[in-house]
Amino acid sequence: MRMVDLIEKKRDGKELTTEEIQFIIEGYTNNTIPDYQMSALTMAIYFQGMNERERADLTMAMVHSGDTIDLSAIEGIKVDKHSTGGVGDTTTLVLGPLVAALGVPVAKMSGRGLGHTGGTIDKLEAVKGFHVEIENDEFIRLVNENKIAVIGQSGNLTPADKKLYALRDVTGTVNSIPLIASSIMSKKIAAGADAICLDVKTGAGAFMKTIEDSRELAKAMVNIGNNVGRKTMAVISDMSQPLGYAIGNALEVKEAIDTLRGEGPEDLTELCLTLGSHMVYLAGKAATLEEARQKLLEVISNGKALESFKIFLQSQGGDPEVVDNPSKLPQAKYTFDLPSLEDGYVSEIIADEIGTAAMMLGAGRATKESVIDLAVGIVLHKKIGDEVKKGESLLTIYANQEQFEDVKEKLYANIKISKQKVTAPILIHEEIGKD
Amino acid sequence: MRMVDLIEKKRDGKELTTEEIQFIIEGYTNNTIPDYQMSALTMAIYFQGMNERERADLTMAMVHSGDTIDLSAIEGIKVDKHSTGGVGDTTTLVLGPLVAALGVPVAKMSGRGLGHTGGTIDKLEAVKGFHVEIENDEFIRLVNENKIAVIGQSGNLTPADKKLYALRDVTGTVNSIPLIASSIMSKKIAAGADAICLDVKTGAGAFMKTIEDSRELAKAMVNIGNNVGRKTMAVISDMSQPLGYAIGNALEVKEAIDTLRGEGPEDLTELCLTLGSHMVYLAGKAATLEEARQKLLEVISNGKALESFKIFLQSQGGDPEVVDNPSKLPQAKYTFDLPSLEDGYVSEIIADEIGTAAMMLGAGRATKESVIDLAVGIVLHKKIGDEVKKGESLLTIYANQEQFEDVKEKLYANIKISKQKVTAPILIHEEIGKD
Repeated sequence: MRMVDLIEKKRDGKELTTEEIQFIIEGYTNNTIPDYQMSALTMAIYFQGMNERERADLTMAMVHSGDTIDLSAIEGIKVDKHSTGGVGDTTTLVLGPLVAALGVPVAKMSGRGLGHTGGTIDKLEAVKGFHVEIENDEFIRLVNENKIAVIGQSGNLTPADKKLYALRDVTGTVNSIPLIASSIMSKKIAAGADAICLDVKTGAGAFMKTIEDSRELAKAMVNIGNNVGRKTMAVISDMSQPLGYAIGNALEVKEAIDTLRGEGPEDLTELCLTLGSHMVYLAGKAATLEEARQKLLEVISNGKALESFKIFLQSQGGDPEVVDNPSKLPQAKYTFDLPSLEDGYVSEIIADEIGTAAMMLGAGRATKESVIDLAVGIVLHKKIGDEVKKGESLLTIYANQEQFEDVKEKLYANIKISKQKVTAPILIHEEIGKD
Repeated sequence: MRMVDLIEKKRDGKELTTEEIQFIIEGYTNNTIPDYQMSALTMAIYFQGMNERERADLTMAMVHSGDTIDLSAIEGIKVDKHSTGGVGDTTTLVLGPLVAALGVPVAKMSGRGLGHTGGTIDKLEAVKGFHVEIENDEFIRLVNENKIAVIGQSGNLTPADKKLYALRDVTGTVNSIPLIASSIMSKKIAAGADAICLDVKTGAGAFMKTIEDSRELAKAMVNIGNNVGRKTMAVISDMSQPLGYAIGNALEVKEAIDTLRGEGPEDLTELCLTLGSHMVYLAGKAATLEEARQKLLEVISNGKALESFKIFLQSQGGDPEVVDNPSKLPQAKYTFDLPSLEDGYVSEIIADEIGTAAMMLGAGRATKESVIDLAVGIVLHKKIGDEVKKGESLLTIYANQEQFEDVKEKLYANIKISKQKVTAPILIHEEIGKD
């Protein structure tokens, strides 16, 4: 087999066989296929696409390019959740304890990475003492006992995907549905998921800006999952504005606690109930999505969800008292309320720019070397559609620096006020993969 | 400027500016743009094409990536001829002395390269004493004096093209009209041509198999040439079978002598008259193509063309007596006539396979290290459309080895005899760029 022949085959719109896809991914992983051939192939895929069988084959070839995690010692169906990413997305912090309270095993492998705020591990480290440096055996024991544990990423998972993603990033081939879908799915499958619940964000603050693109990506991932024997469902949810109110690490932990107590922001709560019912259903803990939702509402109202969070924090060294006393979380030195400059209705809150403002305060990493300030961030008081009076606070800035004129400027520039009434955006656009 | 942005621009079907194309070619030449980005761009160009302005810019950017040859010390309009390549193509050997006899300056830079037979220099070296190791000054003096000289390739011409071609060859992007056209044109322009005469081959033995593809390539090159101020014309000629009768180095020199004497094969003669009249016309030595053709016929019949060849050979150390006594050319030890196995009409002579048979005898280089045997090769006696009787010779094999069963086998396999009458293929399909 010669790579140049396979590039030409795909370039000419033909299908690559299972063996050909394996040859490509193995060769690329072990450096016998050079970057310059791989980038030509990915550009050909950008134009010619891949059919369902090719996508499934590419996903599994990437899964087998490195280590895979064996979660078989954990009882029950391991459901993993994945979000395509947005701003102020506190769902993972809420969903873990929430579905664990219903006996769904949550064996979460998480990372740090770059972004507007830290990753799930960074956020949890806002709880004093909490740590993810646990052995595999301990991780599995904790999930079996408490139904929830988080461990740092280890092992050499999907090296082909890592290498390919870095290449796509500099060769104009990030934006290809078959490549995005197989990249995401390969990581989830290598991490040991039996079933997968996807949250595909759509709108200005999301990677996929239109509902059509989001739907295509969601369907692509659901098809891959089901074609390789992992039951998969997807929700297309709004990211035209930040989700919930809080953007920042400790601030999001507090918001997650509020939500587990039944007192969280409406949109975050609704999204967690939707995704959560998919997870409970996929784990076989409810016969229908409606039944799953009812059970989730129950564990919120009877305190079991909050209790599950406490046990989880404590089991990994964290101080469970933060749940009842969030002032024990890191606190910023300065707070500042950003007053509205006019009367009207909030018409736009440009999610990624607001996220960048939080990062400027220190909430996220711009580069791998950046140090995160867990205390800082932003808490919105108004969302799209809300009425606002001149002088009323749009949001509170939590900062550890005295000067943040540039942040204020960015925030004002990215929150639009309209004289006309504005309708709040739809939160859940579609659910894909429901029977 | 970032290469990834330019890749995405082209990927999305947008036009690259002159400055962007210069940035790309300069960066690629000096290694600040890596192969993996260049191959992604070329695949995007494969799908999205380039408009006329982009093609001209790409051509000139490649011209300026290295040295250019200054032929201004040579009087007259320097017309260069280029063929897209075929089997048994003896036109360069004929055309040089032919148009020089009419005062058209032929300042030929030539190479060796790989192929079924050697390059022009290899062929000329079949004449005892002939050599191309001459100084630039001497080269220019000879062209001014005799109107013809050949020099070996020197200097760092179009390094961007060399690097890009090697990359395209292994990334499935050879077959892109804008890239092929600008590659060929950049080499001719860097070599100092004022005007360019192109012979685009079409058919089974050519790079372009269909008349449509050949026409597209011819038009692309003619447009580039005219857009960058080099008057350019193209002929689309048949390569469904080898051109002329001879395939082999000394054998082609003899065929060129025959043709210059007016006794050459009909198709080779006709193609040389067509291309030659374009060259004479482009050089301003005739007011019309018809006038140019008349003048060419004149120098053939009055012996001036043959005389021009003698002077040329002698001026570069070659023995001019070969012209009157071709037995002074290298002779093969063995000859073998390949008899037809049946009665009928020749319906196919698959050009590239016949070329490969000649290479198997030693006439060409399979790798850079191969040593050419100047004496060996094949001389056809029948061409497509000719009637043949069982036992009649289809061709003569000239060999220096006693065993060549594999060559005979290949030849039989690639010459088809039909019971039905067969029409000879059209030789000159189109002429492009005539006023």
